[in-house]
Amino acid sequence: MFDFASWAQPQRAQVEQALQDWVGVGAPAGLGEAMRYAVLDGGKRLRPLLVLAAAQAVQGHAEAALRAACAVELIHAYSLVHDDMPCMDNDVLRRGKPTVHVAFGQAQALLAGDALQAQAFELLTPPASEVPPAMQAQCCRILAQAAGAQGMAGGQAIDLASVGQPLTEAQLRHMHRLKTGALLQASVMLGAACGTVSAQGQQALLDYAQALGLAFQVVDDVLDVVADAATLGKTPGKDAANDKPTYVALLGLEGAQALAQQLLEQACTALERSGLSDTRALLALAQQVVGRTH
Amino acid sequence: MFDFASWAQPQRAQVEQALQDWVGVGAPAGLGEAMRYAVLDGGKRLRPLLVLAAAQAVQGHAEAALRAACAVELIHAYSLVHDDMPCMDNDVLRRGKPTVHVAFGQAQALLAGDALQAQAFELLTPPASEVPPAMQAQCCRILAQAAGAQGMAGGQAIDLASVGQPLTEAQLRHMHRLKTGALLQASVMLGAACGTVSAQGQQALLDYAQALGLAFQVVDDVLDVVADAATLGKTPGKDAANDKPTYVALLGLEGAQALAQQLLEQACTALERSGLSDTRALLALAQQVVGRTH
Repeated sequence: MFDFASWAQPQRAQVEQALQDWVGVGAPAGLGEAMRYAVLDGGKRLRPLLVLAAAQAVQGHAEAALRAACAVELIHAYSLVHDDMPCMDNDVLRRGKPTVHVAFGQAQALLAGDALQAQAFELLTPPASEVPPAMQAQCCRILAQAAGAQGMAGGQAIDLASVGQPLTEAQLRHMHRLKTGALLQASVMLGAACGTVSAQGQQALLDYAQALGLAFQVVDDVLDVVADAATLGKTPGKDAANDKPTYVALLGLEGAQALAQQLLEQACTALERSGLSDTRALLALAQQVVGRTH
Repeated sequence: MFDFASWAQPQRAQVEQALQDWVGVGAPAGLGEAMRYAVLDGGKRLRPLLVLAAAQAVQGHAEAALRAACAVELIHAYSLVHDDMPCMDNDVLRRGKPTVHVAFGQAQALLAGDALQAQAFELLTPPASEVPPAMQAQCCRILAQAAGAQGMAGGQAIDLASVGQPLTEAQLRHMHRLKTGALLQASVMLGAACGTVSAQGQQALLDYAQALGLAFQVVDDVLDVVADAATLGKTPGKDAANDKPTYVALLGLEGAQALAQQLLEQACTALERSGLSDTRALLALAQQVVGRTH
């Protein structure tokens, strides 16, 4: 029996320590503070854990995996900082704390987000003695594609354009595949890029990651309806109030919950046929994503 | 006698074509438009020309150099988009056109800037068959460091904190070394990273780039005082009006002009002792930077 908590605790501790050591260090005072505020002591570190779990499944390079884990978290954190700004979602509360622009001002929030994105790529490109350069290049490629206009930023743009628009399930899936799915998928593929994996294993990890990414969003929409602010650490009911399309609006609460279960099964099936020796942490992470309450 | 215009014209055309082919392609409609608006058909392409001139000095890899030239321009373009936003400089005119947030709205401008930064790293990481992976990793390293908290974004944060503050010349130099110098320096070092160069050549290129970067800012401050809006393509006198520290405020107009000349000489001297075979384009670019009228 795999004990997820026992696996995750030291992995998370390692990520927290690395983020503490790296984020915003050497930055001008105000900027560094805002960067650290945005990243440290918050979040479930789902994306870093996915990187480390996938790296474990392929016996990946430890230093490369830790750097990739932190890099993807910086991209995630910067997207939240920018997404919370008044010209976007105008959110004042995140993980139970004032958002970065509330605490540091809009200009500093904008710069902190920009600097976090750049630092993600800095973390991926240490001296060649620490991580093989070909692995560095591959990780930069995966992360840049996932973060950009055909990934996360593109998904946010579609989201922006779709406020108040009725979307079909296919359109909603496409938006979320970019907006949240791309970075979750990149997390898994970054871990895989830290080791060697067969074409079959690669495809299985991709299938796993896609199911997981979609499940994450479906559960997010469910939680937006059923959870309260204290559990969620952010303002609930916000998406519905903003007339944003959600899976609950589209499929009903039970329909969305059933879809999440179905996606979890897809993710498990993909891992079973991956041919990889140790996918227990990946499996447990999928269960966590679907079973989470915040 | 080296004819700068004859050298620059085809180089610029090549960069314009590559940007046309690459920027925002495949992005969701509104986002792609905003990205292309921010980048295409505007600007002197100084940074791309620096990359290509430095690559020429080291007989660099042509595809790598073109990609690096475009990547650095995307970083430059994104920084302008974000810098023009209401929470930063609140500029409505750039290169004689409405700024991106005026034309597309603040949310789209924010996302377009974010996506341009990501795309810079995408351009640097094509399939391994196109550019050697070690060169890709080295270029990502140089660009990420130059763009981030210890480079351009850091300089902008210092600039932000210094409005209305009297700065010493040393503090002003430090701010500009980060804010504009880092990316200009990265342009030269990206070009150098596309080929092989001795330690002596590397140091000479660094000295050249630092002198050029500072000269660029000094001339910018001079032009902010002496040029008119039509020539400059942006609002002149803006920095003085915003009580931002400038070299003209610090050294007087003549003092600033003399400093620019002195930096040009430093840049030339560095090239002379570089041991590189063909530094004519780099030399001409330094002369252009100091002699420019907009």
